[in-house]
Amino acid sequence: MKENRYDDPVFFRKYSEMARSRLGLEGAGEWKTLRPMLPDFTGKRVLDLGCGYGWHAFYAAENGAEKVLGIDLSEKMLAVAREKNTFPNVRFARGAMEDVRFPDGSFDAVLSSLALHYVKDYAELVSRVYRWLTPGGAFVFSAEHPAFTAYGNQDWYYSPEGEILHFPVDRYFYEGEREAVFLGEKVIKYHRTVDGYLKPLWQAGFTVEDLSEPRPPEEMMDLPGMKDEMRRPMMLLVSARKPL
Amino acid sequence: MKENRYDDPVFFRKYSEMARSRLGLEGAGEWKTLRPMLPDFTGKRVLDLGCGYGWHAFYAAENGAEKVLGIDLSEKMLAVAREKNTFPNVRFARGAMEDVRFPDGSFDAVLSSLALHYVKDYAELVSRVYRWLTPGGAFVFSAEHPAFTAYGNQDWYYSPEGEILHFPVDRYFYEGEREAVFLGEKVIKYHRTVDGYLKPLWQAGFTVEDLSEPRPPEEMMDLPGMKDEMRRPMMLLVSARKPL
Repeated sequence: MKENRYDDPVFFRKYSEMARSRLGLEGAGEWKTLRPMLPDFTGKRVLDLGCGYGWHAFYAAENGAEKVLGIDLSEKMLAVAREKNTFPNVRFARGAMEDVRFPDGSFDAVLSSLALHYVKDYAELVSRVYRWLTPGGAFVFSAEHPAFTAYGNQDWYYSPEGEILHFPVDRYFYEGEREAVFLGEKVIKYHRTVDGYLKPLWQAGFTVEDLSEPRPPEEMMDLPGMKDEMRRPMMLLVSARKPL
Repeated sequence: MKENRYDDPVFFRKYSEMARSRLGLEGAGEWKTLRPMLPDFTGKRVLDLGCGYGWHAFYAAENGAEKVLGIDLSEKMLAVAREKNTFPNVRFARGAMEDVRFPDGSFDAVLSSLALHYVKDYAELVSRVYRWLTPGGAFVFSAEHPAFTAYGNQDWYYSPEGEILHFPVDRYFYEGEREAVFLGEKVIKYHRTVDGYLKPLWQAGFTVEDLSEPRPPEEMMDLPGMKDEMRRPMMLLVSARKPL
């Protein structure tokens, strides 16, 4: 519960070497798909849940947000985010998504990039996000894809010769904890089904406006392993809106 | 294209022996999940695309539909549907979903049960369904799940001893034709991603109101193979509405 893997020095060093850590949004394969799903940030109060290095928070500020708050559980993440921060209206605070509380209507947009699969009680968090938003407010998130998280170890199934055969799916309808291997380290994640991600949104009162499964971008197709990303979905991107 | 597998005598005989063919809706594992997603049929003009034996058409009539039209490509299916039909306001007609045309606003509800994965150009069909519906009209469908159709043969991956290891996913982002084995016979189906099913709905103008991945019902859990249905998703159920 509320595992703080990103404050483990070895794990954090490996994370910091990933393209998305070094290059920011342009190094993230899903960014081209996510960007058009984001709301107009002009004059908006924005919350970023699981902000990491703060790339999305900075993007919101660059695009006119009035103020942005990034929340993360990892002090190491926040240290990098604060160091990179050049915006007086972007602030970072330590906290678990499960624990933070804000007055109703505190934000016009809530973002979360690849963090919700670390949350045990997603439905409860969604109902809080709904209350934090003003009417018309947007909730946009990415999470690991249910077909990617179901089996558990998040690895391909290989032939005895070490060749990728396919990606395994199992235990799909058994939602809950999985022990995945990420950057060579064990990490606890939570598997949810596709409807497990969507139904809590409708139940909270959201309108679901878009859902995307990002394909690898054409210009990254030559990077090692990128062609294999066509073989199974890895992420689910969703944009939802609180009705006016 | 527009393969008419259900008029093949061997295939049709096997289909007619399935629980869903013998028992109707109560024999279909997804029915308990689909039923609450259906609209109120009272006084409604209903179209059923790929109606098969007509179970859903009859259900709409039993629940107050003003008139119901079932469309199917298979004469054998329609012969059974007509034989079972006791409703003066339920009519069946032969046609491919891809080919049928109706005036705008002809229906208040459009249903399709496990037929859309036989359609090559889903997006085009969705835009037609949108036009056929009156404002406020409902489009509810089930289709085979993208994680189920991606690989192609729709079978488990087995150990050398014949034990189920997991379900394989591959070629996920390569949408299009797959040669599946259904009831021991080769059938052409079309694989689409989850966003491949949803985005055309939004693009046509629909509001997506619900999405379900049916779990096997508790009372069927003792049927052979049913526990394995917890291991991978097989169907995607979606309800959408044309705004008022």
